Amino acid sequence: MDIKDLIKDIEKYLNKEVTLFGWMKNHRPQKDFGFIGFNDGTCQNGIQVVYDSILSNFDEISKLLIGSAIKVEGIVVKSEGSGQDYEIKAESISLEGDCPSDYPLQAKGRPTREFLREIAYLRPRTNLFNAVFRVRSVAAYAIHKYFQERNYVYFHAPLITASDCEGAGEMFKVTTLDLDNIKGKVDYSKDFFGKQANLTVSGQLEAETFAMAYKKTYTFGPTFRAENSNTKTHANEFWMIEPEMAFCDLEEDMNVMEDMLKYVVKYVIDNCPNELDLFDKFVEKGLKDKLNKLVTSKFTRIDHEEVIKILKEADVKWEFEPEYGEDIAKEHEKYITEYFNGPVFIKNWPKDIKAFYMKQNEDGKTVAAVDLEVPGAGELMGGSQREENLDKLVTRMKELDMDQESLDWYLNLRKFGGCFHSGFGMGFERLLIYLTGVDNIRDVIPYPRTPGNCEY
Amino acid sequence: MDIKDLIKDIEKYLNKEVTLFGWMKNHRPQKDFGFIGFNDGTCQNGIQVVYDSILSNFDEISKLLIGSAIKVEGIVVKSEGSGQDYEIKAESISLEGDCPSDYPLQAKGRPTREFLREIAYLRPRTNLFNAVFRVRSVAAYAIHKYFQERNYVYFHAPLITASDCEGAGEMFKVTTLDLDNIKGKVDYSKDFFGKQANLTVSGQLEAETFAMAYKKTYTFGPTFRAENSNTKTHANEFWMIEPEMAFCDLEEDMNVMEDMLKYVVKYVIDNCPNELDLFDKFVEKGLKDKLNKLVTSKFTRIDHEEVIKILKEADVKWEFEPEYGEDIAKEHEKYITEYFNGPVFIKNWPKDIKAFYMKQNEDGKTVAAVDLEVPGAGELMGGSQREENLDKLVTRMKELDMDQESLDWYLNLRKFGGCFHSGFGMGFERLLIYLTGVDNIRDVIPYPRTPGNCEY
Repeated sequence: MDIKDLIKDIEKYLNKEVTLFGWMKNHRPQKDFGFIGFNDGTCQNGIQVVYDSILSNFDEISKLLIGSAIKVEGIVVKSEGSGQDYEIKAESISLEGDCPSDYPLQAKGRPTREFLREIAYLRPRTNLFNAVFRVRSVAAYAIHKYFQERNYVYFHAPLITASDCEGAGEMFKVTTLDLDNIKGKVDYSKDFFGKQANLTVSGQLEAETFAMAYKKTYTFGPTFRAENSNTKTHANEFWMIEPEMAFCDLEEDMNVMEDMLKYVVKYVIDNCPNELDLFDKFVEKGLKDKLNKLVTSKFTRIDHEEVIKILKEADVKWEFEPEYGEDIAKEHEKYITEYFNGPVFIKNWPKDIKAFYMKQNEDGKTVAAVDLEVPGAGELMGGSQREENLDKLVTRMKELDMDQESLDWYLNLRKFGGCFHSGFGMGFERLLIYLTGVDNIRDVIPYPRTPGNCEY
Repeated sequence: MDIKDLIKDIEKYLNKEVTLFGWMKNHRPQKDFGFIGFNDGTCQNGIQVVYDSILSNFDEISKLLIGSAIKVEGIVVKSEGSGQDYEIKAESISLEGDCPSDYPLQAKGRPTREFLREIAYLRPRTNLFNAVFRVRSVAAYAIHKYFQERNYVYFHAPLITASDCEGAGEMFKVTTLDLDNIKGKVDYSKDFFGKQANLTVSGQLEAETFAMAYKKTYTFGPTFRAENSNTKTHANEFWMIEPEMAFCDLEEDMNVMEDMLKYVVKYVIDNCPNELDLFDKFVEKGLKDKLNKLVTSKFTRIDHEEVIKILKEADVKWEFEPEYGEDIAKEHEKYITEYFNGPVFIKNWPKDIKAFYMKQNEDGKTVAAVDLEVPGAGELMGGSQREENLDKLVTRMKELDMDQESLDWYLNLRKFGGCFHSGFGMGFERLLIYLTGVDNIRDVIPYPRTPGNCEY
């Protein structure tokens, strides 16, 4: 049985015999007895095993080192010691796989996250990373649950693609050409797909085709950017959630963004209490308060122009001066969430700094785009109503010198029963950084890909 | 509101006014009234809208063509016509987006699947593909639900990888090199990751690192094969589920395979009744019986050697003669599931035709591998107990002339608290072909990638 299930129903198992498999997390052998910190990884805290010299292999057990895999048969009893309410009184302990003394994860001292990145294949065994990647799993499930229970169809966007959603992404090329024998200019008609192919930077445009069939759809899959950035928030491979809704305007888009975020955060609060305790204690003081507050807070909705006005009027010496018609910097994001004491939707952005597919507002200057700024996380999501007017969309693409032919299918969505529709994108790792307080994206992805790093 | 929710609680809405958005699926305008087949895509069957000449824009409505997006306000009433129990009596209908007469999806005639592949961005609007991709979504959710409710941690395997799990996969290269300017042999140290990188063919080896931390884990993500095969069952990009369990032997592995498959099939039966009706009627007669039978059937477990014996003794003229020590052909798979009248686990395969990481049995000839053969689907899953003995694993890798250094982390799993463990893989599209009866993999992937094809 899983230790998680044992702990959940521990009263039921009291004074009963159980058989458990797991690993030794710590070990305090004494002369006539010993204590083992024992866990199988199905839950955060595990359970203590007590053994004594009655066991025939007592000497052997006493010598076992941290990290060893063992099988324990024993009785669940109330603990007489402090630090735990229950423990297992062992009737037999047998070794499944030992662990030498050069095992890098010893109980003493806390290894740095930088060191653990070097042994990424072992780090989920530590308390911190065990919690991080469990929260990753639980949050992923919460996202599916949220959308599935609301009639959304999960859409698997293609990963290898011949189109470039944003028109400006730095993309990885995908090829089977023999690169050692290219002579001169590449003839992509001879490549695997008969044309140049790349890894996708977004599934949004394709998701729109599903929104026009299912009304509500969402992607949840990997996306790729070949950006040569070495920062705490950039990885070259990451997971995105991209919902897309027909018959949905910008206000309703924000409703979904707010509702979904609260749902997912609440779900993690409810299902990962021990993990959040750990983050709150060792990673980000006040994390639990932050999350609880988000779930009940009112999200402000305000125009970009108003935000710039507030920033300009603020009695702050900015590093970057806020300007109408321009993007805002991290320091501005921070100020504005503090100003409103909660999450802020900044909407109706200058069209020149936003993507071609966003709905043009009647003022001729802005588009119906929105960014969600969250205290302690900065920009967590971005969305927009999409331009459903074919003429306006084509005109905008011409202004930006974009190729229409390769996006004829996208334009046709406006021709064949088009309608007002909206969507948004959320970087999954950005959410995880917010949920865990772990501030480096390399520490919320099991095997992160960054420039020069592609291990495992 | 969604039409799905309306239909689910239709009695509640009887004689009440509702506002709905959706598309015209068919249209029968008469002199003084008209009927619209109306759906928003949230469910299979939609609802009929009746309008009459009282409406101020009656003439305009009468001229609307199939595919148009409309807004309907009206009263839910019991239908007096045949073919439906309820309908909407329209009080107002307004146009959201029209649809010209050259719209490729007309109500008359049934377009071929080949034709629909050419307009893949429109095909989810047809009844068949609407059902296929909804089942895809529901089945994906069932898989997550199954594992999450049983303490498995969802693991996102890396997609870009420097390792090759099977040691023999044909892989896509991932690069940012300027291919037009390669002179002679490629210097991969100058490429984005400082080494040659590929798209993964399996997340299993990495998943094993999570099994050694969480006991139970599963992947569900895209995988890639650069195989130049143009068959009904090959795509170059597809989704795989790869569970991996510590403290799990081959028998328990088969228990999980059987239990999960029955759960997912049952979940789809329960949640997609209208979709399965459609498949049963138009795609594969007897599909519902097939699925219902699977859920209650007993799965046979038999050694590969026994299977060969049965095949050899069969009074059949084989195209490929069955042989001990060799793989089995499709005709053999079919025979053996018919022989046992149900799904069959074929286990303990000759080691020379199986992967290096599979547990070597004591006979020195076979490995603890298993394939699940399902009536009407052939091989649906494959799994194995993994070799946990470091020496045996290293010896096998040497026999196969494999590079140990790049897999040192994998070998270390056997050194640091290793234990008996097992896992399996299921191609998601193979499951969908089984669930829908749609027999071409190009028709169960929204935007399939096959040699020479990379649209959207």
